[in-house]
Amino acid sequence: MYIGYDDTICAPATVPGTGAITVIRISGPKALDVADRVVTCAGGAAAGTIASAPGYTIRFGTIFETGGKPLDDVLVSIFRAPHSYTGEDSAEISCHASKYIADRIMQLLIAAGARSAEPGEFTRRAFINGKMDLAQAEAVADLIASQNAAAHRVAISQLKGGFSKELKKMRERMLHIVSLMELELDFSEEDVHFADREELNSLLKASIRHISTLMESFRLGNAIKNGVPVAIVGATNTGKSTLLNALLGEERAIVSDIHGTTRDTVEETLNIDGVLFRFIDTAGFRQTDETVEKIGIERSWRKLREADVVLSVLDVTRPQEELAAAVNDILMNVDMRQQKLIVLLNKSDLLPESASGTGSSEQNLQPLTDNKNVSIKNFIVSLIEEHNIRVLGNFQWYKAHANEEFKGAVELILISAKNGDGLDRLKALLAATQKDISADSDTTLITNIRHYEALANARDALSRVLRGISDALPTDLLTQDIREALHHLGSIVGEISTDEVLGNIFRNFCIGK
Amino acid sequence: MYIGYDDTICAPATVPGTGAITVIRISGPKALDVADRVVTCAGGAAAGTIASAPGYTIRFGTIFETGGKPLDDVLVSIFRAPHSYTGEDSAEISCHASKYIADRIMQLLIAAGARSAEPGEFTRRAFINGKMDLAQAEAVADLIASQNAAAHRVAISQLKGGFSKELKKMRERMLHIVSLMELELDFSEEDVHFADREELNSLLKASIRHISTLMESFRLGNAIKNGVPVAIVGATNTGKSTLLNALLGEERAIVSDIHGTTRDTVEETLNIDGVLFRFIDTAGFRQTDETVEKIGIERSWRKLREADVVLSVLDVTRPQEELAAAVNDILMNVDMRQQKLIVLLNKSDLLPESASGTGSSEQNLQPLTDNKNVSIKNFIVSLIEEHNIRVLGNFQWYKAHANEEFKGAVELILISAKNGDGLDRLKALLAATQKDISADSDTTLITNIRHYEALANARDALSRVLRGISDALPTDLLTQDIREALHHLGSIVGEISTDEVLGNIFRNFCIGK
Repeated sequence: MYIGYDDTICAPATVPGTGAITVIRISGPKALDVADRVVTCAGGAAAGTIASAPGYTIRFGTIFETGGKPLDDVLVSIFRAPHSYTGEDSAEISCHASKYIADRIMQLLIAAGARSAEPGEFTRRAFINGKMDLAQAEAVADLIASQNAAAHRVAISQLKGGFSKELKKMRERMLHIVSLMELELDFSEEDVHFADREELNSLLKASIRHISTLMESFRLGNAIKNGVPVAIVGATNTGKSTLLNALLGEERAIVSDIHGTTRDTVEETLNIDGVLFRFIDTAGFRQTDETVEKIGIERSWRKLREADVVLSVLDVTRPQEELAAAVNDILMNVDMRQQKLIVLLNKSDLLPESASGTGSSEQNLQPLTDNKNVSIKNFIVSLIEEHNIRVLGNFQWYKAHANEEFKGAVELILISAKNGDGLDRLKALLAATQKDISADSDTTLITNIRHYEALANARDALSRVLRGISDALPTDLLTQDIREALHHLGSIVGEISTDEVLGNIFRNFCIGK
Repeated sequence: MYIGYDDTICAPATVPGTGAITVIRISGPKALDVADRVVTCAGGAAAGTIASAPGYTIRFGTIFETGGKPLDDVLVSIFRAPHSYTGEDSAEISCHASKYIADRIMQLLIAAGARSAEPGEFTRRAFINGKMDLAQAEAVADLIASQNAAAHRVAISQLKGGFSKELKKMRERMLHIVSLMELELDFSEEDVHFADREELNSLLKASIRHISTLMESFRLGNAIKNGVPVAIVGATNTGKSTLLNALLGEERAIVSDIHGTTRDTVEETLNIDGVLFRFIDTAGFRQTDETVEKIGIERSWRKLREADVVLSVLDVTRPQEELAAAVNDILMNVDMRQQKLIVLLNKSDLLPESASGTGSSEQNLQPLTDNKNVSIKNFIVSLIEEHNIRVLGNFQWYKAHANEEFKGAVELILISAKNGDGLDRLKALLAATQKDISADSDTTLITNIRHYEALANARDALSRVLRGISDALPTDLLTQDIREALHHLGSIVGEISTDEVLGNIFRNFCIGK
């Protein structure tokens, strides 16, 4: 039985040396005594000690150096168990934001009997003390890291226990059935069935469906948490790096006119309409004998396959045969069932005036859509048609599903990365690819690989039960697999957890959380 | 008459997106109402609103998005005028440390009637509301920026009002005298002297002495605040950059064997025994026709003159004529009255075994001090003697003060920047040059150029009074100058201040302070 931690921990909860104030947290059975030893409260003994103050109050005081010189004036917030973040007695010291002061206060707290907290130790204590389950504790880290509305929504929903409640319901139903089945075992010689096999069957199927839905949400959830991966691919010198810079509004990638400037992949994130996109600039595709560049190009193809959206950049001023070959290459490598392709006809600024209209503004591109743009689109569609006999792999899928599907999956726009023409439309297209993210939905999304794996294991176990029923396996074998599924589902919220699992989870937290 | 600000300001007091929590400050007459509009407190109406809560208490609550979805769970600390940092009603919201959440809360606070605070605006309000004087307000910024014990001590002493009290005493004495003198003016036709001229004279002299002492402390105070400037100088390729890297323990400066690698000056700070040293690596001194490098060398000489300590790096393996010329150059440019010179005989690792002892450890350098080291020292002293006829400028001072003074001012050690030999001794020597800093003294130190200038102006005015008395100037002219001195002294603590002065001071604060 767990009986609480007996040591007291402390750590800065904000980064010392930045901002106006630094907050240092103390938690544990001696938190208030330690605070009293370090902070001399204004008003002296008459006003009472920190340890005698009620929870949810603040005291003003001074921290003195061991020699008696003042170190800083501070505010101390007092929390009493169990009404604190960790569920233990806690104090938060607000001091001036100097790293020197924060370091000295930490030293004084340690001298007074606290010890420096490990990463995530406050949240780990909150979990151990029953203030939150493991999925909620993990959501704290996600919430802190959330950079946009979608990631925030997923994290706060998980922190508020939405996911945990879903799992709890599922487990309760399974527990009910498994208890009935285990009861049967006690009467096994009488061959009674307390648990309705029909009901069990439908519960198992519903649970497997539910788990599958949660697992499918992982691709989306992960894209929300880490950004939707967008690969920018194309031949060398088509303007991929210029495009990335233009999108980000700053000089991130090195731009030059020398072929093969970008050798490594460059990643940058950008918020568009509340969705985080993770842009992956890649080395250009071209025949090369240089080893370093070859590795870069190989990596580009790999990154392309991992992306949710592929931006294929073509230099619209190049000969049509070259464009044809480039489109061919891309189509061979894009999986139209999983990925979205946007073909960018770049360098519109270099097109003759007659082709690109009277000017370069967004408005003036309008006639283009009806003329040059359409003719280029037709040209590309036709060259795809023309080449599709030769292409293999995923393109076979395109061939089978023909025009109607293809038109939805591929977008084609004329842009100038150099002067910014068409980039607003590109951003709108990108946002449109992620409509399901930006929608303010209440669906639970899985964002954590640990949860994904636990769900996969639970589903496998339940599938075995389903097969076992149809194979008329004995009840004790069935219950064993249901118990295993329960174990995996329970591990998500931490009903079943080991020190090793907890260590892995909280190691990735920041110190002070 | 000042009647308080009528708007309510808000700003993060910690840097959002870092650490475990973010604190957002609100201050102004509507601070608590604004907090109530944004935060829904736990316990609902029964538990009362933030605006009805007593000061120095904390409420737990939830912030909801405009659509009703939860944004974050927060703690709100409540402070009531005048018992707050600003002296106004204030609230501090602690939320999870996501930049997204902090940005959203700021937007919600602004929608609820607050406005985004300007840099230093909270402290400016504290000053305007009489919570601290101007010198104390300035100390807040210094305290936050303090990186070491000495800088912290100066700032906390100023924040605690030590400097302000000294000024106040001086001003009170002067005010007393000037009032008596002004009384004389009412009886000017009767030629009475209420103010004892003798007493006035001695008061003036004492005040001028006091102000001079404070002004002299500026060099030290400034060194404490910004770091003691240490110039590393010497011929090209003597190992200056290697030395800097070795001191800092990291690859900061570019190191190569090509002459003239370091063209720009490089600055890095290092704490030694609680004192901040600011190291200035300089371009090597050598004859060159290259323009860029010439500029670098010129800059090196300028940096050398601004330094408190000069580290002159010599390559001990070079011919004696070259070393002689280098020492000559340095001595011409170092002001022994103001600066401390440490001559480093570098590359001890390249000395033959017989010269540098049996090994390269600190212990093995011991015999060197008695043999090779002493002979090199003697050699350098002798070459100084030999060359001193030809040297000009500051070295004339050396010549005049001869050996006894010189030996105290110049330290000479054998080091190897490459393998670290002798660096501990170098650090000890550096720390020893700043004994007055590391001493735990209670002397008031001026660290602020604004204070320095005000003191200089006050001293000038008082000197004029002194001269005026001996020239038997009429009382009204004398009192005018005393009033001017009072004005300058008063401007330091802000008894006299303009919007422009305040703007200049608080502009350099961080937002949220």
